[in-house]
Amino acid sequence: MPTPQPANTPAREGTRERILGAAEDEFARHGIAGARVDRIAKAARTSKERVYAYFHSKEALYDVVAQHQLTLAAEAAPLNPGDLPTYAGDLFDYFTTHSDRHRFLSWGRLELGTGRAGDQDGADDASAEAPDPYGQSMVAKVEKLRQAQQVGQLDPSWDPVDVLALVSQIAFTSAAQPELANLAARVAVDNSMRARRSAVVRAVSTLFPPTK
Amino acid sequence: MPTPQPANTPAREGTRERILGAAEDEFARHGIAGARVDRIAKAARTSKERVYAYFHSKEALYDVVAQHQLTLAAEAAPLNPGDLPTYAGDLFDYFTTHSDRHRFLSWGRLELGTGRAGDQDGADDASAEAPDPYGQSMVAKVEKLRQAQQVGQLDPSWDPVDVLALVSQIAFTSAAQPELANLAARVAVDNSMRARRSAVVRAVSTLFPPTK
Repeated sequence: MPTPQPANTPAREGTRERILGAAEDEFARHGIAGARVDRIAKAARTSKERVYAYFHSKEALYDVVAQHQLTLAAEAAPLNPGDLPTYAGDLFDYFTTHSDRHRFLSWGRLELGTGRAGDQDGADDASAEAPDPYGQSMVAKVEKLRQAQQVGQLDPSWDPVDVLALVSQIAFTSAAQPELANLAARVAVDNSMRARRSAVVRAVSTLFPPTK
Repeated sequence: MPTPQPANTPAREGTRERILGAAEDEFARHGIAGARVDRIAKAARTSKERVYAYFHSKEALYDVVAQHQLTLAAEAAPLNPGDLPTYAGDLFDYFTTHSDRHRFLSWGRLELGTGRAGDQDGADDASAEAPDPYGQSMVAKVEKLRQAQQVGQLDPSWDPVDVLALVSQIAFTSAAQPELANLAARVAVDNSMRARRSAVVRAVSTLFPPTK
């Protein structure tokens, strides 16, 4: 049995990175409850014990990957409060190109979200002390939007929380409703992904016209 | 072991209904892969064999419940193409009141959706011949929107597929992004569900002004 290694030991960086990559795939396919740490270990060419040495639990591993995923998404789609249609278009591009990453994040919402939101269901074991990878980055984005409202860059009659929620939600239209791909194939006037993207950008432009 | 019963035998209606109710709960909590037929059978006070006698497979059982769920949602939120803000408000109310039903449908999207949409991932076993509970009702809704465009009740410059997608997506903003409940609690100007609902209705009104 391998000796457990502390996280971030430089000599073990390669193993740690391989675990994170394997975990991303495993979570995207199977969700958190369905993910198997032994499959992650095998794909990362290491042992289950080593995985637990780097990351305390499957949920903690999910959280580390989720933080990384959110950072990548934020880099690919930087929030410019004066040009929300471009932000929506960037998000659309990123998550249609990386549909596995939308799946990855959606599992977290479904498996951890309810408990976090204080739902009465209580079926999820890990929900009480579940990590909240969205919290920090979203608070910063809301603050950015609020400042834009103060300088007249964004209509101040919207709650900035709703602006962020609506723009993200609209940008995820195709990624979040996979049944639409089937539907569009059958009945859309223009069945291209470009047409879906245009509708998303147009909707955000109509709601929040760019001011720059 | 009980004798398998054909589906829809009148004398067994009670058992069948109990199975459907138990299945709804089980799928909403655990998703399709995570659902256990023996737990469904136990909750429905019947046997696993009886469940399989009524429904061929776990996936077929999900599909029957999903069809029922979509019918209930369609009754609670009837689509009037001349008043899409009301439709969005009705959907919002229905799925915030029945958040378990949004969870139920979200699992199906995540677990069956990718395969259905022809994604390259191919990780889902059942995706090839997976049922498509959304198809029929969505095609009918798109047709209704198209007719409304023809009689000048709805802006014809939108693809009706995008109208349906955007309005549903906006209506699901709170249900689909549970992390927003946390965020709103911390940073919203008005942290009430009524405020979130108003933003949804306002967004749909701005995009698709009612014509009735």
